[in-house]
Amino acid sequence: MAVIDTLFTNAKLGDGSLKDIGVTNGRVSSIAPAGTGTGASPQVDIAGALLVPGFVEGHIHLDTSFYGDKWIAHKPCTNGFDVHERVAFQAENMARAAPMEERARKQLELCVANGSLQMRSHVMVDGSVGLKSLETILKVREAYRGIIDIQLVAFPQNGILKSPGTPELLDEAIGLGADLVGGLDPASFDRDLQGHLDVVFGVAEKRGVGVDIHLHDFGSLGAFTVEEICARTVALGMQGRVAISHAYGLGDLDADAARRIGARIAAAGISIMTNAPGNHAFPPVALLRAEGVTVFSGSDNIRDSWWPYGDGDMLGRAMMIGYRSGFYTDEDLAAAFDVVTAAGAKALGLEGYGIAVGAKADFVTLDAEHVPEAVVAVPKPRRVFKEGRLVAENGVMVR
Amino acid sequence: MAVIDTLFTNAKLGDGSLKDIGVTNGRVSSIAPAGTGTGASPQVDIAGALLVPGFVEGHIHLDTSFYGDKWIAHKPCTNGFDVHERVAFQAENMARAAPMEERARKQLELCVANGSLQMRSHVMVDGSVGLKSLETILKVREAYRGIIDIQLVAFPQNGILKSPGTPELLDEAIGLGADLVGGLDPASFDRDLQGHLDVVFGVAEKRGVGVDIHLHDFGSLGAFTVEEICARTVALGMQGRVAISHAYGLGDLDADAARRIGARIAAAGISIMTNAPGNHAFPPVALLRAEGVTVFSGSDNIRDSWWPYGDGDMLGRAMMIGYRSGFYTDEDLAAAFDVVTAAGAKALGLEGYGIAVGAKADFVTLDAEHVPEAVVAVPKPRRVFKEGRLVAENGVMVR
Repeated sequence: MAVIDTLFTNAKLGDGSLKDIGVTNGRVSSIAPAGTGTGASPQVDIAGALLVPGFVEGHIHLDTSFYGDKWIAHKPCTNGFDVHERVAFQAENMARAAPMEERARKQLELCVANGSLQMRSHVMVDGSVGLKSLETILKVREAYRGIIDIQLVAFPQNGILKSPGTPELLDEAIGLGADLVGGLDPASFDRDLQGHLDVVFGVAEKRGVGVDIHLHDFGSLGAFTVEEICARTVALGMQGRVAISHAYGLGDLDADAARRIGARIAAAGISIMTNAPGNHAFPPVALLRAEGVTVFSGSDNIRDSWWPYGDGDMLGRAMMIGYRSGFYTDEDLAAAFDVVTAAGAKALGLEGYGIAVGAKADFVTLDAEHVPEAVVAVPKPRRVFKEGRLVAENGVMVR
Repeated sequence: MAVIDTLFTNAKLGDGSLKDIGVTNGRVSSIAPAGTGTGASPQVDIAGALLVPGFVEGHIHLDTSFYGDKWIAHKPCTNGFDVHERVAFQAENMARAAPMEERARKQLELCVANGSLQMRSHVMVDGSVGLKSLETILKVREAYRGIIDIQLVAFPQNGILKSPGTPELLDEAIGLGADLVGGLDPASFDRDLQGHLDVVFGVAEKRGVGVDIHLHDFGSLGAFTVEEICARTVALGMQGRVAISHAYGLGDLDADAARRIGARIAAAGISIMTNAPGNHAFPPVALLRAEGVTVFSGSDNIRDSWWPYGDGDMLGRAMMIGYRSGFYTDEDLAAAFDVVTAAGAKALGLEGYGIAVGAKADFVTLDAEHVPEAVVAVPKPRRVFKEGRLVAENGVMVR
């Protein structure tokens, strides 16, 4: 029997029970009633706080945030929100920003300090920046290995067909170390839905990687695009390896239509990412979950060219998902929490997630009576453990 | 010239300037460039933090929160949200809650710790509880005099015409110390819009007090009720002394209709309170402000029978107002901040509000570069000063 490296004592789990948790080689090796765990030194006393698995930050942009940089004021949208306009504003801003590596590190440390230990970040790969951003973020990922696990999506922010060289760059990005291939509004941005998806799924099939597509289109264009992505996913047998981020159009459908497309999304094994945006439609979280869809979440932009909000706190994001979805009961609040934990792990295809024997000892402590209270109160004093080692406390990363 | 009691040094004001602020007898007596303020001991070093006026908590329910009490799980709504159903659930919960005084104190201290120094609380006054709740809350108000200024609204939670004795109780409530008379969904709850308003405005006129009416009705019924309240307000010459809380129906109108009714609300000098609820329509904050309407805000319910959310932080509420309203530019973020500060003071008719010579020395310090950053970052380490005295720091009230 393996020797226990660390014993976490008096940890309150989601079911209300108090447990002693043994950790061996970074994995949970035993879970016993509090007071009965033995054989380890050092011990870490959780003192009855709620112990939850590390949060899953499922959608972030490590390359484009200004968090920790100088404040950049937003420009008003001239004619409603326009993706092209924002992309141009972003290019302007990136030229005057602090070095990307510095900004990415600050954003990462903010996320870890708040308890995110698994992450999927989109990184711009297109004709405008080539592979430069990806190379920087790959280096940052390496620097934080053992602190946070990071998946990278090669994200064609300037389109694929409209940005010369992008198809080849997406392919090279995977060779360089990106884990998934991304896309952006196949219809409204590139004006060629099928041509865009040909490239995305072509690279995915060739390289054997997953897909995570940004889809901002509202209404029936958004829904139509979702259906096309479902069809491609099933045709290629890629169930479980495709995500659609934002999918605002799903929030514009009436309940019957949403249930029908929800069933189709579930059958295609596609996950839906929402950050519960503030002032427009977004996917109906409860309805999609009821249809069997894996709904996950992320901060998305943190203080960047797209909006000034964001704090890198996935527990706060769970609160926002609940708040925006009208979740009031304990069961609903627990669902919001699931979106930023277990459902996120499922969407990202993570191995060894959760508080169970054999899983990675990725823990966050919360001063809350139980999960529903944690979601509404968003308690900030937290200790964060990656594979059994303390990596953050008091809102600051420790190394 | 009055002797300065305390000099607050190196305070960054909203305009970015660094100032020394002299306080005499609880009021600002001088504002000078940093380093030039003289003549006082003790000094309080603000150390370049942002100094803003105390927040205005414009709508809260001190009598019905369970904050600090045991957790009470929510019941699902059986048939969509129904005010009658929630009122009944609330009555059930109040019977098993901790003593009201204890709960009210905990909620008040939470608000003060977050920087609210001015408050308007609704308190149930109707046939179900009589004046009992008001008597308790009046006692609590007295206990916190000099820490937070509190206006109380006599609130007929069970209706006026449907709850026997309520018209007389509302009148007595004012005699007992309530500052304003309230109302609740005149059409949909009491089923007699004019009869309900007859009582509300009758008591207001007789007693010479203001009015603050809860109005949850959506769509045209909500808009129609707003118009009727405008008409009554103008007829009685009560401009500047009437508020409508929630007014969800204003969020259902198209922009032209909203502008027309906004102009009417502005002409009647009626303030609109919104807490930017999560999953349904609410008043269009920017549009109403552009029409000259005073829009203010409040936590509304904090962890009570109506919803499990709420943290008593009006800076967080400003973030939510901005988030829900699509406020991205610095100007918009400053507007969200105005809603929880100066506009709140105007709605409540407060004397001596703001950071200006002659105003009350009610200050909150924020670790932020400027107001727009404070709104998106919601920094938590704060020092809170009421009339120049420290009343809270590190999230806890000090006495």
